Amino acid sequence: MRMREDEIIARYFAPLAGAGGLGLKDDAALVRLPDGFDLVITNDALVADVHFFAADPPFEIARKALRVNLSDLAAKGAVPVGFLLALMLPKGWQAQFPEDWLAQFAQGLGADSAEFGIALLGGDTVETSGPLSLSITALGQVPAGKMVPRTGVRAGDGLYVSGTIGDAALGLAIRLGRLGGPLPPEHSQFLTQRYLVPQPRMGLAGPLQAFARGAMDVSDGFVGDLAKMLRASNVGGRLDLSAVPISEAARAAMVLQPDLWQSALTGGDDYEVLCAIEPQKMADFEKAAADAGVKVARIGVATADPQVIWQNADGSLQTFSQDRYQHF
Amino acid sequence: MRMREDEIIARYFAPLAGAGGLGLKDDAALVRLPDGFDLVITNDALVADVHFFAADPPFEIARKALRVNLSDLAAKGAVPVGFLLALMLPKGWQAQFPEDWLAQFAQGLGADSAEFGIALLGGDTVETSGPLSLSITALGQVPAGKMVPRTGVRAGDGLYVSGTIGDAALGLAIRLGRLGGPLPPEHSQFLTQRYLVPQPRMGLAGPLQAFARGAMDVSDGFVGDLAKMLRASNVGGRLDLSAVPISEAARAAMVLQPDLWQSALTGGDDYEVLCAIEPQKMADFEKAAADAGVKVARIGVATADPQVIWQNADGSLQTFSQDRYQHF
Repeated sequence: MRMREDEIIARYFAPLAGAGGLGLKDDAALVRLPDGFDLVITNDALVADVHFFAADPPFEIARKALRVNLSDLAAKGAVPVGFLLALMLPKGWQAQFPEDWLAQFAQGLGADSAEFGIALLGGDTVETSGPLSLSITALGQVPAGKMVPRTGVRAGDGLYVSGTIGDAALGLAIRLGRLGGPLPPEHSQFLTQRYLVPQPRMGLAGPLQAFARGAMDVSDGFVGDLAKMLRASNVGGRLDLSAVPISEAARAAMVLQPDLWQSALTGGDDYEVLCAIEPQKMADFEKAAADAGVKVARIGVATADPQVIWQNADGSLQTFSQDRYQHF
Repeated sequence: MRMREDEIIARYFAPLAGAGGLGLKDDAALVRLPDGFDLVITNDALVADVHFFAADPPFEIARKALRVNLSDLAAKGAVPVGFLLALMLPKGWQAQFPEDWLAQFAQGLGADSAEFGIALLGGDTVETSGPLSLSITALGQVPAGKMVPRTGVRAGDGLYVSGTIGDAALGLAIRLGRLGGPLPPEHSQFLTQRYLVPQPRMGLAGPLQAFARGAMDVSDGFVGDLAKMLRASNVGGRLDLSAVPISEAARAAMVLQPDLWQSALTGGDDYEVLCAIEPQKMADFEKAAADAGVKVARIGVATADPQVIWQNADGSLQTFSQDRYQHF
């Protein structure tokens, strides 16, 4: 069945619209923030077979597209409010995709909208001669003046990262058949799922707002993104490689294929939060993060010397051949 | 020369960033509206060879992508604040496009940012295996509660449209070689320019805010969009075809090829504003529009009867074979 744009919007997307989305029946959406709040806004574009696989489950494609944006908001200490979606469907998508592709895609958006307490505010649906592509703009709010910038890190601040690093890059390696042997299925599943659906650390928004001087989400490679945040703040850092949190599954994969450990730390798609906390607030931050149920690890300290130095457990220095993923 | 994503952003886009854009060096942008204002937000996606021609001047592609969004804001009575841009560049774009393509594209964004008093707040730049694609999210502000909805039209309201209708559809017909004969160059140029670069009616934002009960921008075809606004408001309308404002150039094209007049009224890409004004405010609205330098024409009246009736000057009824453009 050939569906028209209006029908697609009415059937699949209008049910996801919040009050501000005006049923997706107006030219624009309306957002009213509480007095004394700033708007935080971010946009990420995802293209099939660059940022995800076209054959991935549409439920998960939708969630990934939304979550990579929510991760940016979390890193800024912002609470998400809503999002807009530009959906570019490949011409003839009805023949290419399973019949209920769009229904499942909308269900993925709906599930995460419920999980994160947000609504679809608007967007656009068009056809393209190219691959399936998505552009999501996510809106969040913070009390005025409280957005956590990338640029606030000072020498002496403790450097932290949330969750575990490298899972998604290893999950991608598994998807591409680049892992040199079979992993136990639970590890393999964990890593591929970490690639498929990131976990934005929304629980950290409050602790970051309260205690962080600088923060950034890790999307393009942990080592490079950390260097980027320090450079933006005109500081350097001394980092302890053995303190970087690595999941059990990632450890198992690296044992299997030791040359993957560098790409795990530089491959990207982690969607964890990097942040800098002034020394006297570190205990409070650690407690607030624990109370919010988000694991954070202290990985080093910011330095006045602009170099970023990575040390192994034995004190030797570690360098990286390429520090982050460049989209091109 | 092969440019990386970071270099592209630093060289071409960072200079367009406003204060809230944080130099495009953070995860997100920060927007603070004055107390007592609502945010109005809209998103439009444009794909090469669907919404514009890939070979069009990049200066104009950028302006069109921005202006179609600004037109939505104008129709809501909103004053634009800024925008985010997701730019999807076809793989190998450096070989496909002239060397300074991106520079000219950024100049187009910059020229219009200056003209409309807005700034680039953020976005994303990625590569695609498909055609050049753009998704722009534009932000505007209105005093709280003053956004002009599509749904507020009541029976008895005067129906107005800005500018002239059909120019862009005829400009596209000229581009596609579908015009049956040569037009005088000034007419041909006017119409193709109207297709290439829409003129968002920002001057109407104030008059609409003050006097309109309902409004909508005309993007997908005048006749169909008008019907859509009336349907959304649960009213109908009685319209006078001879009152629809048609430019001299469009008249000349229709004389040359009379069968084009229906597609001119239903073809889309007008980016004019349709609105409904209660009878006792019509004179004030007309004066405010004139003071703002925007031509508006009264084309009919909203009716309690839900039918939308088009009358010719001789009183006979007019029907349309297809009332608007559907993207698919």
